Amino acid sequence: MTTKTAIAIHGGAGTILRSQMSEAKEAQYAGALKDALLVGDKILLDKGLAIDAVEAVVRQLEDTPLFNAGKGSVFTHEGRNEMDASIMEGKSLMAGAISGVYNVKNPITLARTVMENSEHVFLSGGGAVDFAKKMGIPLESDDYFFVQYRYDQLQKARENDVIILDHTSVKNADNKKFGTVGAVALDAYGNLAAATSTGGMTNKQHGRIGDSPIIGAGTYANNKTCAVSCTGHGEYFMRAVVAYDISCLIEYKGLTLKEACTFVVHKKLAEMGGEGGLIAVDPNGNIEMLFNTEGMYRAGKASDSELIIGIYK
Amino acid sequence: MTTKTAIAIHGGAGTILRSQMSEAKEAQYAGALKDALLVGDKILLDKGLAIDAVEAVVRQLEDTPLFNAGKGSVFTHEGRNEMDASIMEGKSLMAGAISGVYNVKNPITLARTVMENSEHVFLSGGGAVDFAKKMGIPLESDDYFFVQYRYDQLQKARENDVIILDHTSVKNADNKKFGTVGAVALDAYGNLAAATSTGGMTNKQHGRIGDSPIIGAGTYANNKTCAVSCTGHGEYFMRAVVAYDISCLIEYKGLTLKEACTFVVHKKLAEMGGEGGLIAVDPNGNIEMLFNTEGMYRAGKASDSELIIGIYK
Repeated sequence: MTTKTAIAIHGGAGTILRSQMSEAKEAQYAGALKDALLVGDKILLDKGLAIDAVEAVVRQLEDTPLFNAGKGSVFTHEGRNEMDASIMEGKSLMAGAISGVYNVKNPITLARTVMENSEHVFLSGGGAVDFAKKMGIPLESDDYFFVQYRYDQLQKARENDVIILDHTSVKNADNKKFGTVGAVALDAYGNLAAATSTGGMTNKQHGRIGDSPIIGAGTYANNKTCAVSCTGHGEYFMRAVVAYDISCLIEYKGLTLKEACTFVVHKKLAEMGGEGGLIAVDPNGNIEMLFNTEGMYRAGKASDSELIIGIYK
Repeated sequence: MTTKTAIAIHGGAGTILRSQMSEAKEAQYAGALKDALLVGDKILLDKGLAIDAVEAVVRQLEDTPLFNAGKGSVFTHEGRNEMDASIMEGKSLMAGAISGVYNVKNPITLARTVMENSEHVFLSGGGAVDFAKKMGIPLESDDYFFVQYRYDQLQKARENDVIILDHTSVKNADNKKFGTVGAVALDAYGNLAAATSTGGMTNKQHGRIGDSPIIGAGTYANNKTCAVSCTGHGEYFMRAVVAYDISCLIEYKGLTLKEACTFVVHKKLAEMGGEGGLIAVDPNGNIEMLFNTEGMYRAGKASDSELIIGIYK
């Protein structure tokens, strides 16, 4: 039995510049990341399962309006919140995913319920919401998801007819932020798990699906290799099948986690023009948190190491 | 410049037994497969592009009520036709996918339009249909998709509260057929392309997404390695990221196309309990058509070889 545990989380990547961030805001993000990470760390130190740790951490990030997931989800062009999420368990290779859901308080919990209580892997839209109701998953009214800041973003984006990838001001619309949250974990039994959740892009095309709910693209976990959660320009991450690519580079080519992540983020994706980053953990408790953007909200901690929190490069 | 070209197509896999098939029906399927294959073969021999060949072939299969895609799509529990499709080009690694669309005559053409005329890879539901309208993609009324045989299947499935994977009679509900169509091709310029289209499962959960529209799971193409289109129990194909796995086994582990396909279909998927099959072609024009079920509707032809049509093992 492994006794080392490890957990890493992200809150999105993009043009996150120190020059544009107040000290107060920086402290707010760092505090939210730390609080979420410690929820997962405690579960793991108490001999809980990796799948429970990643779900709990992502739920907490979904409940924080700071991040573009759950409560903090951005608005589509039609003024709706359409959320996507996925979760995967490395031991059984079981997975659950949902896309285009609305009024679901914690999309990651719905994804887990699809994994554990349906014969399907991936449910979308009204069908996914119907399943949530049938399973008694907590729903919230539109008011719960109404965050003034997000709504103002939509109005500005509509006026300028621009898609905003996260909470960037229109003035800085070329400053992209990819709003996603995610977690990866190794538990004391050697199990890996990964979870990803997103509120999508401001002013986006209704019905657009990114990489977050796609097993193999935004999320993947396999006890033999690694657990990965991505954040970035989803279209590139889907075309490059990023999360499973990391796993294949380890399994078939014998790369280390660090080598595999570095190759995919800094070479493959960079050459395609795919901006973003990822967090990953392997069966030895090694943690990687890489990105090819200006910054990525992130935190990581292994049972035998100090907590690391980062925002900028 | 390569001069060899190759194309392979499938019309679904499952419990397809000679004992349950009349000679007339067998001839009907074989004829439809041959006609579709020759449409693609002609494009390739005339120095057309692989992407044009796979789209044209899948369009023809979608227009044939025999197969569960396009016109022949099965009904969901709610009595709707919800169709999924995806397409990928091996040179650019560009891809397009749609899921849960209705009234779209040729879902594969909508997927290609998403690839070529949107900034997205994957659109679903009403958003995808709105995009089809905006782009002038031909729509058809519900009547067009109403095939009496499919509707009778739904009534029987509802009465028995069973999900039917394709056009199996309820008496033979354990005889599974996975209704999907797909094509892979190599053109004279060395380009690979793959396309997959499906009408889903009879009486399925509204909003269920299978592997067909998932880049990396049901469809993948890369000029360096292979083009793959899958058909089978989608949940397993998603968890195993089947199409991209074939590509990784070739690229990272040095397997041949035959070795990679055999390993994934007969070992990995078989051990998970994942029933189905796939068609694949590599840059040398090698064709593989493998399945771990009783049968798979299939046909293949390279420019330097005879046409092969198969239904049973």
